Amino acid sequence: MATIFLYEIAGTAMLTLLGGGVVANVILGKTKGNGGGWLLINFGWGLAVFAGVYVAYKTGAHLNPAVTVGLLAGGGGEYADGIPVTFANTIAYFAAEMIGAFLGAIICWLAYKTHYDQEKDAGTILGTFSTGPEIRSYGWNLVTEIIATFVLVFVIIMFGKTPSGLGPLAVALLVVSIGASLGGPTGYAINPARDLGPRLAHAILPIPNKGGNDWGYAWVPVVGPLLGGLLAGLASMAF
Amino acid sequence: MATIFLYEIAGTAMLTLLGGGVVANVILGKTKGNGGGWLLINFGWGLAVFAGVYVAYKTGAHLNPAVTVGLLAGGGGEYADGIPVTFANTIAYFAAEMIGAFLGAIICWLAYKTHYDQEKDAGTILGTFSTGPEIRSYGWNLVTEIIATFVLVFVIIMFGKTPSGLGPLAVALLVVSIGASLGGPTGYAINPARDLGPRLAHAILPIPNKGGNDWGYAWVPVVGPLLGGLLAGLASMAF
Amino acid sequence: MATIFLYEIAGTAMLTLLGGGVVANVILGKTKGNGGGWLLINFGWGLAVFAGVYVAYKTGAHLNPAVTVGLLAGGGGEYADGIPVTFANTIAYFAAEMIGAFLGAIICWLAYKTHYDQEKDAGTILGTFSTGPEIRSYGWNLVTEIIATFVLVFVIIMFGKTPSGLGPLAVALLVVSIGASLGGPTGYAINPARDLGPRLAHAILPIPNKGGNDWGYAWVPVVGPLLGGLLAGLASMAF
Amino acid sequence: MATIFLYEIAGTAMLTLLGGGVVANVILGKTKGNGGGWLLINFGWGLAVFAGVYVAYKTGAHLNPAVTVGLLAGGGGEYADGIPVTFANTIAYFAAEMIGAFLGAIICWLAYKTHYDQEKDAGTILGTFSTGPEIRSYGWNLVTEIIATFVLVFVIIMFGKTPSGLGPLAVALLVVSIGASLGGPTGYAINPARDLGPRLAHAILPIPNKGGNDWGYAWVPVVGPLLGGLLAGLASMAF
Repeated sequence: MATIFLYEIAGTAMLTLLGGGVVANVILGKTKGNGGGWLLINFGWGLAVFAGVYVAYKTGAHLNPAVTVGLLAGGGGEYADGIPVTFANTIAYFAAEMIGAFLGAIICWLAYKTHYDQEKDAGTILGTFSTGPEIRSYGWNLVTEIIATFVLVFVIIMFGKTPSGLGPLAVALLVVSIGASLGGPTGYAINPARDLGPRLAHAILPIPNKGGNDWGYAWVPVVGPLLGGLLAGLASMAF
Repeated sequence: MATIFLYEIAGTAMLTLLGGGVVANVILGKTKGNGGGWLLINFGWGLAVFAGVYVAYKTGAHLNPAVTVGLLAGGGGEYADGIPVTFANTIAYFAAEMIGAFLGAIICWLAYKTHYDQEKDAGTILGTFSTGPEIRSYGWNLVTEIIATFVLVFVIIMFGKTPSGLGPLAVALLVVSIGASLGGPTGYAINPARDLGPRLAHAILPIPNKGGNDWGYAWVPVVGPLLGGLLAGLASMAF
Repeated sequence: MATIFLYEIAGTAMLTLLGGGVVANVILGKTKGNGGGWLLINFGWGLAVFAGVYVAYKTGAHLNPAVTVGLLAGGGGEYADGIPVTFANTIAYFAAEMIGAFLGAIICWLAYKTHYDQEKDAGTILGTFSTGPEIRSYGWNLVTEIIATFVLVFVIIMFGKTPSGLGPLAVALLVVSIGASLGGPTGYAINPARDLGPRLAHAILPIPNKGGNDWGYAWVPVVGPLLGGLLAGLASMAF
Repeated sequence: MATIFLYEIAGTAMLTLLGGGVVANVILGKTKGNGGGWLLINFGWGLAVFAGVYVAYKTGAHLNPAVTVGLLAGGGGEYADGIPVTFANTIAYFAAEMIGAFLGAIICWLAYKTHYDQEKDAGTILGTFSTGPEIRSYGWNLVTEIIATFVLVFVIIMFGKTPSGLGPLAVALLVVSIGASLGGPTGYAINPARDLGPRLAHAILPIPNKGGNDWGYAWVPVVGPLLGGLLAGLASMAF
C-alpha cells in the first residue's frame, strides 16, 4: 500500500503540475505561452498524462479515480501487476490520487508565482486550477463529462486488449484527442482528483486577486467522471 | 458476424463522436476550442481514428466502407484475422460502419447540446456533421475526394507490407496528413459512412436553427471515397 | 531496377502530393486550411515524408537525391536491402525521384484545381510548387540549405546506428524539426527532386495566373542539398 | 573519453542548432515561421532534443550538465553503457556539452545570417541564443528552473525503469511537455549548457544590432538546472 501511495501521489502530482502549468502558461498574463491556443492546452495536458504515467508505471498509473472505478467495474481483478482489487487498495488509490493532485497544483503555483501575483482576474486564476463550463447547465455539463470520461476509460481498457506497444504514448494521445474533441463545453475534467485536488489548493493558497472556488459546480467534474468510468468498465465487459 | 457489428459499430461511433466533436469545438460558438484552427481539426480527426482503431481492432478496424472496398479489391482474401472476404461480411461491414457513424454523431450532439441550442448559423451546424466544399464543383470535388481516399487506403495497405509496428498510430498520423494536405477543398470526407451517417443524424435531430442537409452534395463524399478506395486496392496489387 | 523505379516514383509522388498539398491548403485562397500557419506546414511536410517512406519502404525510401548521395558518400555499400551501390542504381534513384516529384505535383494540382483557377497571385502559385527565399542572397541561401540537408541526412544515417524501432516516424519527426528550426530563411527544400520536379510541373501546367518559374534561384535547392548530403555522408564515417 | 567528446559535442551542437533555430524562425523578422507561436517553439525544441539524442546515443545523450548531475546523484554507477561515473568522465561530459552548445549556436547564426543582419531589436537577437524571464525575479525564476529541470531529469530516470521502448521520442515529448507547461515564466533553459554556450556565442559573434549578454541573469539558468537535476537524482532513489 505504501507503494500505491508513493507512485500514485508522485504521478498525479506530475499530472496536475504539468496540466495546470500549461493552462497557466496560456491564460495568465505576461507568460511566454500567453494566448497559445487550445491545441497547446491539449498537447500540454496529454503530455502531462504521459509524464505522470511513466512516474506511476509501477502501480498501473491510474492517476484518476475514474480509471480506478472503471477497472473495478471491468472485473479484471487487478489494479496493476501484483496489486489485487481490494477495498483497502481502492481507498489507497483514491486517497493518493487526491493528495497528488493537490500537491501538484501547489508546485505549479510556485512555478508561476510571479504571474499569479500580478493576475487581476479571479476567473482566470481559478481556471488554472479547476475546470468550469462555458455554458452553465449542470445536467448537460454532467452529460459531457460522462461521455468524455467514458471515452477515456473505455479506450484505455481496449488498449489492454490490443497488441499496441505504445503504452504511455497511447494514453497521452487519447487525452489530447478527448481535449480536442470533447473538451469544448466543460474543459474536460474527466478526472475527479484532477479537478477537486487543485480546487482545494486554490481555496487555501494566498493568491492576491483570487475569488471563490465555485463549489456549486465542483460536484459535476467529480460525479460525471465517476459515472463515465463506471459505465466504461461495465461496457468493456461486452468486448 | 455479430463480432463485426459489435466492434465496427463501436469503433465507427467513436470515430464520428471524436471527429464531429473537434469540428464542433472549433466552429460552434462559446466553446473552449472556438477558432482553434485547421491543425487542431486535423489532430482531432487523426486521433479520432486512433481511438476508433483501438476499439475495433479485433475486426480490423475498417470504420470506413472505402477501406472495406479497398481490401476487397486488393484481393488479400481476409478483412481481418479470421474474417474472410464474403458477400455477407462485406454487407455487415458496410452496415455496421453506417450505423456506428450515425450513432457517434448523435452522442456528439449530446456532448455539445447547449452549444447546438445557441448556434444561429445553419451552415455551421451542418458543418459539424458532414463535409462540404469550399468551391462547389461536383466534378473537381469528386476528384479531390478520390485522390485523398486513394492516399488513405493505398498507404494503409502499404503499412501491412512493412515492419512498422506503429499500428493505430500510423493510421492516425496518415489521417492527420491527409487532412493537412488534401482537406483544403472539400474537408476530407474520405469515408462514405463518416459523411452520410452524421448527415442522416443531422436530418432527424431536433436542433433549433438547423437548415437543409445539402443532399445535392451528399453523393460526392460517398462516390469519391468508394472510387478512391477501389483504385487504391487495385493499385496496391502492383506493389 | 524496375523495383527502384516503381517504389521511388510512387513514394516521391506521395511526398510532393502531400507536401505540396499542405502548402496549397495554407496559402491558396478559399481553402479550409487557409492561414493555418507554419506548424501546420511543418507537420504536413513531415507526414508527407512519413507516407512516402511507407510507400517506398522496399527500396529504402530515399525519395531524395541528397539521401542517395549521402548513402553513396557514407560508404555503406547498399542503398537498401539487396540493392547494391552501383552507377546504374544511382542513376535509377535520381531519375525515379525526379519523375515521382514531378508527378506528385501534378496530382496535387488536380486536387486543388478550383483553387488554382481562382488564385490571382503568381508568387503564391509558385510557392505551392517550389521553395523560394525570404531574403534573396544566393550564397547565404545556399548555406542554409547545406546546413538543413546536412542535419537531415546525418541524423537519418545515425538512426541506422541506433536501436530505435521508430522507422518512418523518426524520419517524419526529423523533417518536422528541420522545417520548424531551419526552414525560416529558404523554406527547406532539403531535396533537389522535391524542388526541381514540381518547378518543372509548374512550368508546364495550364494555371491561369501563374508567373515565371524563378529559374535564377532554382540551382540553390539543387546544389545546396546535394552538398549537404555529401558532407553528411562523409561526416557520418567518423561516428 | 574521445568518444564522449565526439558524440556529446555533436549531439549538443545539434540541440542548440535546432533549438536556437526554431526561436530564430519564430521571432526574427521576415522568416517563414515569424509569429508561429509557442507550440511551434515547443515542438521545435522537443524535436531538437530528439535529433540530438540520436546523434549522441552511444554516450547516453546527456546533452545537458543537469542530466549528468542527475545520473551522478542517482547513483546508477554508469553514464552510459560502458562509461563509468568517474571524475574525469564527469568533466568530459560537462566540457563537451558546453563546447557543443556553443558550436551549435554559431551554426544556427550562419543558417539565419541574413535575418540576423536585418534585425533591429537587441532583445530579440539575444532571445534566439539564451533564455530570459518575462517577470524578472531571480529567486522565483530560480524556483521555476529548479522545478522544470527536476521534472526533466526525474522523468528521464523513470523512463529507464519502465519497459517503454520509445527511447528518444519519449525524451522529445517530455521536453515538449515541459516547454508547454513550465516554460511560461523563464523560457525553460533546463540545461546550463544550452543557455550558457549560446550566450558566449552571442557575446563574440559580429551581429550588427546586438546588445548586452544579460550576464546578470546568466547564473539562474545554470544554477537552477543543476539544483533541479541534483534533486531529481536524489529523489529517484526512492522509486
